[in-house]
Amino acid sequence: MTVVLKLGGSVITDKDRPETLDGDALERAAAAVASVDSDTDLVVVHGGGSFGHHNASEHGVSTTEGTHDASAALAIHGAMTTLNGFVLQRLLERDVNAVPVHPFSVAHRDRDGRLSLPTGQIRTLLAEGFVPVLHGDLVAHEGAGATVVSGDELVADLATDLEADRVGLCSTVPGVLDDAERVIDRIATYEDVASVLGESESTDVTGGMAAKVRALLALEASASIFGLADLDAFLAGGEPGTTVE
Amino acid sequence: MTVVLKLGGSVITDKDRPETLDGDALERAAAAVASVDSDTDLVVVHGGGSFGHHNASEHGVSTTEGTHDASAALAIHGAMTTLNGFVLQRLLERDVNAVPVHPFSVAHRDRDGRLSLPTGQIRTLLAEGFVPVLHGDLVAHEGAGATVVSGDELVADLATDLEADRVGLCSTVPGVLDDAERVIDRIATYEDVASVLGESESTDVTGGMAAKVRALLALEASASIFGLADLDAFLAGGEPGTTVE
Repeated sequence: MTVVLKLGGSVITDKDRPETLDGDALERAAAAVASVDSDTDLVVVHGGGSFGHHNASEHGVSTTEGTHDASAALAIHGAMTTLNGFVLQRLLERDVNAVPVHPFSVAHRDRDGRLSLPTGQIRTLLAEGFVPVLHGDLVAHEGAGATVVSGDELVADLATDLEADRVGLCSTVPGVLDDAERVIDRIATYEDVASVLGESESTDVTGGMAAKVRALLALEASASIFGLADLDAFLAGGEPGTTVE
Repeated sequence: MTVVLKLGGSVITDKDRPETLDGDALERAAAAVASVDSDTDLVVVHGGGSFGHHNASEHGVSTTEGTHDASAALAIHGAMTTLNGFVLQRLLERDVNAVPVHPFSVAHRDRDGRLSLPTGQIRTLLAEGFVPVLHGDLVAHEGAGATVVSGDELVADLATDLEADRVGLCSTVPGVLDDAERVIDRIATYEDVASVLGESESTDVTGGMAAKVRALLALEASASIFGLADLDAFLAGGEPGTTVE
C-alpha cells in the first residue's frame, strides 16, 4: 500500500507571520504520521506556507516567473529547507524514519513548464523503510531560471509515478465546501463542483481548491481532502472530508 | 565546454579535526572558480573531508555498509550539507552563481551498488547559468539502507553522463607521484603507474589514488589531477599536474 500525504503549508505554519511554524499543528500531524503501520509505504509532501510564499513573492518568483540569481534562489530554497528541517525533526522525535528529498536537487521543468521528477531514489528509500519528505521548493526551469514547484504539483506527479493507492491532502478546511459551507462528500467529475469552485481554467498550481480538485480528478488513485482533525482517520484507512474519485 | 571540477574534501577541510573547515584553502578555491568565464558550463563536486568521513565512520556507514536509521542518516547527510553550505557561501560571495544539488535527494544504488544519478536538473541548471555544486553524501541503496557516495564516484558518473570535455581533481598532492615523489606528467594506461600505485583491484571508491586513476582512465574526457596551487591553471585551460588520457 503506497500513500502520498500532503501536509498543507497553511496547516503547519502561521500564514500571517513570515517564517513562523504552527508548532501545535505540526505536533498533531507528526503524531498522526507516527501511527501509520510500517507496512505502508508513506511519502510526505509539505507546502511552503509562510516560509516559502513570503520569500518567493519578495523575489518576484512564482511557478512561471523565475530567477536566474543564485542568491535569490538560495533565499527561497533555504526558507523551504528550514521548514523541511522542522518537519523532519518532529517526525524523528516520534520515531518516524523520515529523510529529506529536496525537489530543487532532483526535478526540473522544460520550456513549457512540464515537471520532470525522477523517483528511483524515492522508490529505493521506501523499499528500505524510510519515509521520504518532500516540500514545495524551487526547480530549474528551461528558459526561466528557477521557478516555484508547489506541494500540490509534487503530490500529483508522485501519485501517478509511484502508482499510489491513496492520496490525502490535509488542508485548513475540512473538505470541499458547498454554498452552505457543508463538506461535499464525494466528487466524481468537475461538473459536480463547478457551481461552487467556478469554471475557471486557471493554471495556478500553487493555488486554490479548484486546481486541487482538477489535479486529483486526473489521478488513478482515490484522493481525500480533509482537515487536520481528520488526519488520523485518513491514515487509519478512512475517507474523511471530501473524496475525489 | 563542460567542465567537472572536484574539490577534494581534504583540500577544503582540516582532515585531522572533525567538522573543521580549511577556510584559507576554500577561499583560494572559490577565487579560482570565480575566474572561470561564463561560457563554460561548470559543475563543482566536493568531498566530505572531515565533515563526512568522521560522521560516516562513527555510524559504521561506508559505500557498502549502510544504515536503515533515519537519525544516523541525517547526522551524516547533515554534516555533508553543512560543508556544502560553507562552500556555496564562499562561492556566492565571489559572485559565482552556485546552487546546491544534494545527491541524497536524487541518486540511488541498486542491489549491486551501481549508482543512478539523473542529471536533467543539472543540465537545466547549467543551461540557465547556474553552477551546480554536488558533494559526497549518502544515497538510498537497495538492500543496504543508505550508503556513502564519494565525490570521486559522482565526478566519474557526471563526466560520463554530461559528456564533459574536461575533468579536474583538485587534490592535496600536486599530481600522481612516482617512486621519487616527482609528478608523473601523463598516464595513458594503468600499466604506466602499476609499479607506483599497486596492482590492487580494490573497489574502494572513496579511496586512494589507484581508484581515482582507474576511474579517470575509463572516462572519455581528458582528466587532470593537481594541487590547489594549480587550480587556476587548470581552470584557465591548462593541464597542470598529472594528465590522465
